[in-house]
Amino acid sequence: MAEILKGNVVAAGIKEKMKKDIEELAKIGKVPTLGIVRLGNNPDDISYEKSIIKNCDTIGIQSKVFERNTDMTTEELVALMEELNKDNSVSGVLLFRPLPKHIDETKIREALSPAKDVDCMHPINLAKIFEGDMTGFGPCTAKAALEVLLYNEVPLEGKNVVVVNRSMVLGKPLVMMLLEKNATVTICHSRTKDLHEITSKADIVVTALGKAKFFDKKYFNEKSVCIDVGVSLDSEGKLSGDINYPEVSEMVSMITPVPGGVGSVTTSILLSHVVDACKKM
Amino acid sequence: MAEILKGNVVAAGIKEKMKKDIEELAKIGKVPTLGIVRLGNNPDDISYEKSIIKNCDTIGIQSKVFERNTDMTTEELVALMEELNKDNSVSGVLLFRPLPKHIDETKIREALSPAKDVDCMHPINLAKIFEGDMTGFGPCTAKAALEVLLYNEVPLEGKNVVVVNRSMVLGKPLVMMLLEKNATVTICHSRTKDLHEITSKADIVVTALGKAKFFDKKYFNEKSVCIDVGVSLDSEGKLSGDINYPEVSEMVSMITPVPGGVGSVTTSILLSHVVDACKKM
Repeated sequence: MAEILKGNVVAAGIKEKMKKDIEELAKIGKVPTLGIVRLGNNPDDISYEKSIIKNCDTIGIQSKVFERNTDMTTEELVALMEELNKDNSVSGVLLFRPLPKHIDETKIREALSPAKDVDCMHPINLAKIFEGDMTGFGPCTAKAALEVLLYNEVPLEGKNVVVVNRSMVLGKPLVMMLLEKNATVTICHSRTKDLHEITSKADIVVTALGKAKFFDKKYFNEKSVCIDVGVSLDSEGKLSGDINYPEVSEMVSMITPVPGGVGSVTTSILLSHVVDACKKM
Repeated sequence: MAEILKGNVVAAGIKEKMKKDIEELAKIGKVPTLGIVRLGNNPDDISYEKSIIKNCDTIGIQSKVFERNTDMTTEELVALMEELNKDNSVSGVLLFRPLPKHIDETKIREALSPAKDVDCMHPINLAKIFEGDMTGFGPCTAKAALEVLLYNEVPLEGKNVVVVNRSMVLGKPLVMMLLEKNATVTICHSRTKDLHEITSKADIVVTALGKAKFFDKKYFNEKSVCIDVGVSLDSEGKLSGDINYPEVSEMVSMITPVPGGVGSVTTSILLSHVVDACKKM
């Protein structure tokens, strides 16, 4: 039976450190504050927003919501970003995306100051990750996956890691983070042939296909460390990861559950970026 | 005996296209012009500069050298970049690096307009490559390696490619370019364990370790396509690639020679960027 790598303990460690930082900041009159920019009333955005605000409250981070209409122009949204850049009461900014199609996302991403870009959308922060410079803000999901490995002291140097995802929120930045730890990394995706032959030989496999229970036993070996970042609904309508958990967890050495794995760490990473941004202000 | 993938034919194809573009540009009174910024008189820089100018002359690209002293300040070099950004007679800028240590390279890289950044040093161009957006300027050596594969119609989709290099001039950008072609990519480096086990199973291996003749037969199979980007001196003081060419070329299916392989394509890529920059001005 595999060791279960739960996200809540990893998140607790991050929160513990944050609380200390927030106390220190309070002594010099600073309160970390997250500015949330939301266009329109998409229910998913609102649900995510509520969850973030609740998390902020618990930890002692202020939050301010900037709600705008979906018909606002690129110029207006750029102006809002520039206003938030100057606003000393806002440490970091989270902009809900995707944006309405009439808005030029490139201009918006470049308008926000890299120093307040806690969700890593500015090209300067992305280029830093690409170059292996981890002093900027990295994509939260990729950092969450890495944190789960680091917290559980999974060796990375010289290990063969397979990442089944090539997106900008997970696969590509995670590959750069793993290279910094001297892992040998393979990036797989929907066009990869004989995927199980590649994953089953790896020391660590990170999956994010969004196909419930797709990865069965044949994709792993007895020593596999499995980090499941996929979230989708299975045939019974239940939240599920990419990995067939009941079957695979019996065989491998370590595995993250879904829900309760990497996803539980992501918001803590975002909030830790807000605290870090406040410290640098 | 392997098929030899020579660089000169690949470069000739690129030059042919450039000549047509230059003729078209001449009709509207435009001449592609490369601005070369050199600090000091490093012999390697001067030798590279001469070779580039000669190549520019042959193809019909103008070149202008901006020679400065090594004691110039960051502010002065930023000012020069800004001047070149505004200068309509300069299409693209090549800055010789590394810069003297007292200069803040980050500021210089961000000072040059991404539209004139033909050597891909601006974070915005790097972030584009990272995101798989190939509309900007990519690092020339990585593009040269890719061009050799494309010119020779080596299938990439679904193929397993191993890149033995994780630098910003080759390995990392090449991985992004290969992912865009739907290859499955593994990045190896000095800390990779059992390297031959990984490379010998791949369809395509790109090497750039800078260790003369390091890769012998055991690193490949009979179908291997070998792209050798390493350049160093062997024990006899002769220019050599990473691959033990006499031994390996007898076994694999395709191989690039050194010299005369990828290196012969790099300058053509740089010059094609100058032409592209001029077209967009």
